[in-house]
Amino acid sequence: MANVQDAIMLFGDSITQAGWAEDAFGARLANAYSRKLDVLNRGLAGYNTDWAIPVLEQCLPTQQGQQYLPKVRLLVVWFGANDAVIKPSPQHVPLPKFIENIKYIVHLAHSAESPYYSPSTKIILITPPPVNTHQRAADLGSRDPPLALDRLFDTTKQYADGVKEAAATSKVPVVDIWTAIWNAAGENEEALSRYLSDGLHLTPDGYTVAYEALMKTVAAEYPELHHEKLQYVFPAWTEVDWSNPRPSVQKREA
Amino acid sequence: MANVQDAIMLFGDSITQAGWAEDAFGARLANAYSRKLDVLNRGLAGYNTDWAIPVLEQCLPTQQGQQYLPKVRLLVVWFGANDAVIKPSPQHVPLPKFIENIKYIVHLAHSAESPYYSPSTKIILITPPPVNTHQRAADLGSRDPPLALDRLFDTTKQYADGVKEAAATSKVPVVDIWTAIWNAAGENEEALSRYLSDGLHLTPDGYTVAYEALMKTVAAEYPELHHEKLQYVFPAWTEVDWSNPRPSVQKREA
Repeated sequence: MANVQDAIMLFGDSITQAGWAEDAFGARLANAYSRKLDVLNRGLAGYNTDWAIPVLEQCLPTQQGQQYLPKVRLLVVWFGANDAVIKPSPQHVPLPKFIENIKYIVHLAHSAESPYYSPSTKIILITPPPVNTHQRAADLGSRDPPLALDRLFDTTKQYADGVKEAAATSKVPVVDIWTAIWNAAGENEEALSRYLSDGLHLTPDGYTVAYEALMKTVAAEYPELHHEKLQYVFPAWTEVDWSNPRPSVQKREA
Repeated sequence: MANVQDAIMLFGDSITQAGWAEDAFGARLANAYSRKLDVLNRGLAGYNTDWAIPVLEQCLPTQQGQQYLPKVRLLVVWFGANDAVIKPSPQHVPLPKFIENIKYIVHLAHSAESPYYSPSTKIILITPPPVNTHQRAADLGSRDPPLALDRLFDTTKQYADGVKEAAATSKVPVVDIWTAIWNAAGENEEALSRYLSDGLHLTPDGYTVAYEALMKTVAAEYPELHHEKLQYVFPAWTEVDWSNPRPSVQKREA
């Protein structure tokens, strides 16, 4: 078998999928956790939680599969940006259903009756970022044919609050990116353009806020999973027994 | 079970391990292959091939394990920078042994008698980059205590040629990064500083040369593995059956 490194799974929408672009949070995590944990991109552009749940059920190892497959040590769940799209878009998920869906995602990994139950999987929820409706309206209006504004500032705020409600009920930590970015922009919607490229997706500065807020939560809530607390799975070259390398390079738990 | 995405495994030394830093080749591959193949960092700073082989034997799925574990669709092997260190460093591997080791690495995945035999695993070898001995000597000389120059321009060139020899014998493609970077620098050792940060490791410009050369080889030798030829494992959101999502989001071969 060859489960070499356990994993951090980033599960979300386009904001997660784009997390390996220049200086974004997935690539930064993968760099920080190199030789310790693999960082898996399970971002699904355009997906809401209704569509993402049956995907997650294929991504999480079943209890039976966990003996063979890399353990998911940390599951980062970042939805809401599409669930909060206003009707009549098919992406819209009503707020109470969205909150239920987030709680169901936690249940999948944390409840003993779930086929995906994994006591070693820690979970962090992330709230959707704020929407800059000025940028978003300009972006959609410039398309051919022009599209109407599909997300509202206050609605996305309600979905961010919904993630916090689900986190409190499910007793898992939450990274409130909505508030972190809102505060960074001085609570000024137009100033969000430093953190949002098109009113919705993150700029490198936006991903920096997200990365730092996520690592702060890891340090506070799951310090044993902070990259500085983990060791290399295979030893540093200075620890290799040069006269007889093989026994000295056996993999270890990170 | 949950083998969701097959993998590209990057197996090498510190130049591979650092491949997820700002704009480096691993992060760029992971971005290009998102939702298609996972890109696994199996870079081992300071390792030579003698020490890395017993690590690779733990990283490659055994024939028995391949039914459960992600398939390695592409194995990228990038060594030589440490094997070429001059004596008496323990990192030094004599050139003939280095060439044998590279061929043994190919054998591990490609020979039917190997426990790791995997007909679906394609292999690409990469040559070590050239050394800028001016930069390297300055870097080592500035340490406390100062260290003597440990790599020679011509010696590393011989190891680069050794990788090409191993590739020809083993009938696998090679990306000649040594020559690509040497040409980019106008065959001028001092001008290598644009591509090498310390005379040995790559700058973002050096990684750009490496990424583009690697993708060109993928396109020419294994076009079926080029990211533009692969489909998403889970469908685009516009292909989801919104009235009954579950059957429409079943995973597919990328």
